[in-house]
Amino acid sequence: MTLRDSRLTALGRIRDARMSPALTRAMPIDPWRLISRRFSLETPAEGETLFAVANGYMGIRGAHDEGLPSNDPGFFLNGFHETWPIPYGEAAFGFATTGQTIVSAPDGSVMRLYVDEEPLVLGESKLLAYERVLDMRTGILERSARFRTARGAVVQLRSQRLASLHWRHLAAISYEVTLLSGQAELAIASELVTHLPRPKGHDDPRIGVRMDESALAPVNQFSDGTRVLLELRTRSSGIGLACGMEHSIDTALRHTIESNVQEDEGRVVFFLDAEPGVPARITKLLGYHHADKAPPGDLARRVHRTLDRAANDGFARIAEVQRERLDAFWEHSDIEIDGPEDIQQAVRFNLFQIRQASARVEGHGIAAKGLTGRGYEGQYFWDTEIYVLPVLTYTQPHVARRLLHFRYEMLEAARRRARQLGHRGALFPWRTISGEEASAYYAAGTAQYHINAAISYAVRQFVRVTGDEEFIAREGVEILVETARLWADLGFFSQRRDGQFCIQGVTGPDEYSAVVDNNAYTNLMARENLAAAAEGLEMLRDTDPDAYDRLVTRLRIEPHEPEDWCRAAERMFIPHDDRDGVLLQDEHFLNRKPWDFENTPLDHYPLLLHYHPLNIYRHQVIKQTDVVLATFLAGDRFSIDEKRRVFEYYDPLTTGDSSLSSCVQSVMAAEVGDMQAAYDYFLLSVAVDLANLAGNVSDGIHVASCGGVWMALVNGFAGLRDIDGFDLRFTPRLPADWSRMRFRLIFRGSRLEVEMTQEATTFTLLDGSPLTLATNGESFTVSAHEPVVVPVALPAAAG
Amino acid sequence: MTLRDSRLTALGRIRDARMSPALTRAMPIDPWRLISRRFSLETPAEGETLFAVANGYMGIRGAHDEGLPSNDPGFFLNGFHETWPIPYGEAAFGFATTGQTIVSAPDGSVMRLYVDEEPLVLGESKLLAYERVLDMRTGILERSARFRTARGAVVQLRSQRLASLHWRHLAAISYEVTLLSGQAELAIASELVTHLPRPKGHDDPRIGVRMDESALAPVNQFSDGTRVLLELRTRSSGIGLACGMEHSIDTALRHTIESNVQEDEGRVVFFLDAEPGVPARITKLLGYHHADKAPPGDLARRVHRTLDRAANDGFARIAEVQRERLDAFWEHSDIEIDGPEDIQQAVRFNLFQIRQASARVEGHGIAAKGLTGRGYEGQYFWDTEIYVLPVLTYTQPHVARRLLHFRYEMLEAARRRARQLGHRGALFPWRTISGEEASAYYAAGTAQYHINAAISYAVRQFVRVTGDEEFIAREGVEILVETARLWADLGFFSQRRDGQFCIQGVTGPDEYSAVVDNNAYTNLMARENLAAAAEGLEMLRDTDPDAYDRLVTRLRIEPHEPEDWCRAAERMFIPHDDRDGVLLQDEHFLNRKPWDFENTPLDHYPLLLHYHPLNIYRHQVIKQTDVVLATFLAGDRFSIDEKRRVFEYYDPLTTGDSSLSSCVQSVMAAEVGDMQAAYDYFLLSVAVDLANLAGNVSDGIHVASCGGVWMALVNGFAGLRDIDGFDLRFTPRLPADWSRMRFRLIFRGSRLEVEMTQEATTFTLLDGSPLTLATNGESFTVSAHEPVVVPVALPAAAG
Repeated sequence: MTLRDSRLTALGRIRDARMSPALTRAMPIDPWRLISRRFSLETPAEGETLFAVANGYMGIRGAHDEGLPSNDPGFFLNGFHETWPIPYGEAAFGFATTGQTIVSAPDGSVMRLYVDEEPLVLGESKLLAYERVLDMRTGILERSARFRTARGAVVQLRSQRLASLHWRHLAAISYEVTLLSGQAELAIASELVTHLPRPKGHDDPRIGVRMDESALAPVNQFSDGTRVLLELRTRSSGIGLACGMEHSIDTALRHTIESNVQEDEGRVVFFLDAEPGVPARITKLLGYHHADKAPPGDLARRVHRTLDRAANDGFARIAEVQRERLDAFWEHSDIEIDGPEDIQQAVRFNLFQIRQASARVEGHGIAAKGLTGRGYEGQYFWDTEIYVLPVLTYTQPHVARRLLHFRYEMLEAARRRARQLGHRGALFPWRTISGEEASAYYAAGTAQYHINAAISYAVRQFVRVTGDEEFIAREGVEILVETARLWADLGFFSQRRDGQFCIQGVTGPDEYSAVVDNNAYTNLMARENLAAAAEGLEMLRDTDPDAYDRLVTRLRIEPHEPEDWCRAAERMFIPHDDRDGVLLQDEHFLNRKPWDFENTPLDHYPLLLHYHPLNIYRHQVIKQTDVVLATFLAGDRFSIDEKRRVFEYYDPLTTGDSSLSSCVQSVMAAEVGDMQAAYDYFLLSVAVDLANLAGNVSDGIHVASCGGVWMALVNGFAGLRDIDGFDLRFTPRLPADWSRMRFRLIFRGSRLEVEMTQEATTFTLLDGSPLTLATNGESFTVSAHEPVVVPVALPAAAG
Repeated sequence: MTLRDSRLTALGRIRDARMSPALTRAMPIDPWRLISRRFSLETPAEGETLFAVANGYMGIRGAHDEGLPSNDPGFFLNGFHETWPIPYGEAAFGFATTGQTIVSAPDGSVMRLYVDEEPLVLGESKLLAYERVLDMRTGILERSARFRTARGAVVQLRSQRLASLHWRHLAAISYEVTLLSGQAELAIASELVTHLPRPKGHDDPRIGVRMDESALAPVNQFSDGTRVLLELRTRSSGIGLACGMEHSIDTALRHTIESNVQEDEGRVVFFLDAEPGVPARITKLLGYHHADKAPPGDLARRVHRTLDRAANDGFARIAEVQRERLDAFWEHSDIEIDGPEDIQQAVRFNLFQIRQASARVEGHGIAAKGLTGRGYEGQYFWDTEIYVLPVLTYTQPHVARRLLHFRYEMLEAARRRARQLGHRGALFPWRTISGEEASAYYAAGTAQYHINAAISYAVRQFVRVTGDEEFIAREGVEILVETARLWADLGFFSQRRDGQFCIQGVTGPDEYSAVVDNNAYTNLMARENLAAAAEGLEMLRDTDPDAYDRLVTRLRIEPHEPEDWCRAAERMFIPHDDRDGVLLQDEHFLNRKPWDFENTPLDHYPLLLHYHPLNIYRHQVIKQTDVVLATFLAGDRFSIDEKRRVFEYYDPLTTGDSSLSSCVQSVMAAEVGDMQAAYDYFLLSVAVDLANLAGNVSDGIHVASCGGVWMALVNGFAGLRDIDGFDLRFTPRLPADWSRMRFRLIFRGSRLEVEMTQEATTFTLLDGSPLTLATNGESFTVSAHEPVVVPVALPAAAG
């Protein structure tokens, strides 16, 4: 049994159990909502991630309102991080020096309920009813619970929580409590609280360093009636933060309010003279602003304004706007699937997580876990460009534009880093929050030069799909030029390889090989990067000679440089096996010892937790797609036969120990016609968080995999490609037990709807200029009001 | 100008200046003594290393008696170290977890002199005369100084210091003060003092982690008249230490004595009513005992006994025995050279450092810096086996035996380490004190599997040279078997290489390449290791069937294993360049980009302090001999032509950024007939510490290079080889401006003297059985009282 089969069998058992009557009662499958009705089936660790709400600027872990039970609660702000000197037992020149780790801001999500002076802890009380729902249309996390107190009273709770997609600095909570019968003294303490430091001991390198929240130094406090504000500063990175909460209460009950504030926490407490049947509803508004540099008091004034405006709007209006924003999102970004009912839910969950991670990301990047957890220290990787930007470019191009601008802003640091490594041009950091390299293990960090190519790939795709010439002129070409310069300097024309351009000593996407020579993925992507820089410059010269001249002067581009790039691109060495012609992951891949998969117990995956890197590196074993990914991203360079050989060769060697793998395997399996594999890998992608397949969902959502689910559906099952002559090419292959899939794309301002059935695919231009499309090798034009129906050529094989 | 030439030019300038009348007055060149007569020309940093005294168990940095001025004083005990958790910004499975760093014991070398209540600091006082001498025949560091006090009095000081080569736990100091004229109140405070923590900030990875002496926790104290004892324990590693001092005073002056002790320091103070012309001589005896585990009070009792016995002997007797021990050492180990006068001094300095590092090393190893400094954290490397054991095996075989036994004691930890890395057999730690792996950077640490081969090489050489069959039966074969098992498991018969045995992903001696495939050195040495294990087992079976049976049972040696080792050895893949047949440093060495030596400024060496490892690794640039070393150690596998091609190819690529390099380059240059290079590299070796060529002599002596100097002389200029059919083979090539070189060896109990002149070489058997020797391809027998004179065949070329 292959590794894929055993994983799929395990997933199958999970899905079967999930579909059982008992579990569907406890956790009904709903196309738009994630529902839990059995408190005892939840674990705080997983629930905090899966029920997190976020807007790209802030993210609130799905801890229960009362703060308990909890595993690792947190209130994360994008880019709000602490720095620390990276320790090395043995250091060397050029090693990254400054670690960067996201820290939780003071958590304003806490509403402690005291019943007869005892704090309510769900799970320790007698629960009569319970439901928690993450509604992906309203963007609200809603919880209702009914419990019996120790003195026999029955209390009803209902709460709602959102991170506003419209007002990025705003979160809002509605907390309603009703004594249904009996007698109870009720008090609700609304907190803005700095969590206690978490224990640091763990062995999982995927988590990384944990920072204490003691990284926050108090600066100022404010408290006035129902409003509390805290100003703080991170001790080492010096980032300023102001956060505040405002409250209102709507009730016929008599009540009193007290508030207080200390250095790092504030509290507004509502004491209720509860009477049966009379509800009390508290609205809590939260404002968060942070900045590297801000005049004293400025951040606090911004928080006051955020709270003032929100208080004026009220919870209902804020929730209404939230729904409007999500309606607009789903309008462009939904993928409808008629098939097994859990699939639709899981697909929407993945798309919703993309939304939560990216919606209001202005000025920051997308962390590997979005804002749902501390995994990978809240850092940005190449995941953004290769896995998340495609869906955004096609459905939310303004968000994609912001993320590329964020990389542009990082260029100066990337130039510095290149110089530090002895190179020309710019080298983007493998992992970063601030723009400086933070990877403390260069073999699977700094050596992954391919991040340069990932960013330039995203630039090119964005320009191609949006036609945004202003972006390419102002920022895009500069990124392409500086990344191309790095490649030109990194590689060399090797006499030993008949003058071909070789790139030695780099790590490709597969981190189970490290510091290898001529990684095919890297060389292929560098080739695209080099050619794109020359083309981009040429285009700029033709379209905007003034801008071109300014750029050439500013970057001191020598006339020979574009020629050098083209020559390097043309003569790029792409390693092939001499015997059967298959593309080699790196020049020496086949020389390594085969991995003994047969004698590797299933519980020894991921291998990185059970084997020394040296042991892994010297074997033919792959963490995640590498060559296979190259045949997708640079797909026009390969025949379908070559792609098939690559897929069939490398697939059995790929452990999928990274969540970045199975989505790409799904896409390429679909392209080479292995629909069973395509569907298997799609399932392993779409379920990675909901079924906790990687075992670490407690640390946060796998955002790249969420983007990868879109790729599996749109690039895989619909076969979208944008790298050849047509506007867009499709090769629809609907999984066998799906009857329909429908999605929308935006291409150069035109909105296209694609609806696939087992019989035909319908292309409808919703608005904009006509598009030239192609399916099955034949091209056609789709214009407004003239849908084109293309019968399915290939029968689907499985699914 | 090549790198070697520019270094040699720089050294030439140093030597020329050294020979100038001004400097020879200040630092007379003496064949047996290191002399300094100008205080202002010394720096505390270098002086503390060069004037250190040590006996292999303890080492006292050459700080001045009064404790000031100082740079990094220290009193080191072999193996006395603290442990600490190795920090990793990003950790991975199997990374070494426990750092090990030598810490200074409380320093008993301090004799503070107070003149009119002010502490004397040489250099701040008005010095009238000064001399400091490290006498390599007496083994005593002696200092005399005369100075004028602020009130106009003149005071004469004379001190002697030794670390006893006979009583390993004993150091002794004689401190004599005489008021010559005028009036002065004198007090001498003899201390046993824990130094203040040193600043930790430095950027040189060759130093490693600095530990605070606060690593020492007080356990007990004792003070009684002139005796003070401290008992302490390292906080984390838990090593117990007792140290104490005893005093006597010999003077006609009236005096009083006070003593006191605190938790971590003790003091005995002598107050003198000084009168002109009346000397006061204090003898200070120091005893140090440490142990991982010892019953409470036991170590203190041992110190008392050491002090009692020494007090009974008195300083004069201790110094006399010291001289006897050194006479015996030089009797076996001296190398006499008639040539430039600084050469003889420098050669003896290197040999003396070997003595200081190894004399009484029982139960421990030889640290990279001996006991003269904190460099490389006081850890043991492969240096011992490849660079230091040869001279010991040939001149002090009982010391070599102890060092090999120390490795044998480490086998169990090496077995554990192998298992951790997923291997069978034993993997010796790349750097260690306790036996556990302490290298925090596996690419230039754990990946250097070749340490296994180095240890088995030393085992084989020791057995061959000493004929010690008892060692091979009791310990040697077990080391060979367990190391061979590691190689058999590490490599594999590669189908891609026609079934040859390949070893992937290891680092060879050259640390400017890392984690490479089929490093020639490693494969060649592994081949010897594998073959030696099979041979060793067979020999044991023939000579001692019972011991053989016990070993086979205890190690569970399967019948097929020796066959497997032989097969792997026979089919070992040794990479050659297809074009010109030159041995490749590793399989892919030539694919790398050539290093731009021309545009590398001289102050950018060593490269490791100025370039990121990735940058270095992807170029053809070598830190230290690798293939060239292989053609020495496995020299019988190569023709002289092959050796010459190897030397000529790799020499220009070798930066010599490691002190392990030039001695080997000298040996092989001599063998291939390039006497100019041989002499150049000999000079760069012999002067590495005295001329501070590596720039870091302040951190300690380069012990490996000291051993390398012996190799350059004996294996290089005398051309000694022991790896083929004769007992010993010589190819004498005396440097042109030397008229004579004479040295002695012990081979299987026979003592041989070799005296080389420009005309002839005389071989004299001093005692023991006749030996079969060979020179210039012809063999002959040398017997007692029948010296053999062989005329020189080849004219020397340079020198």
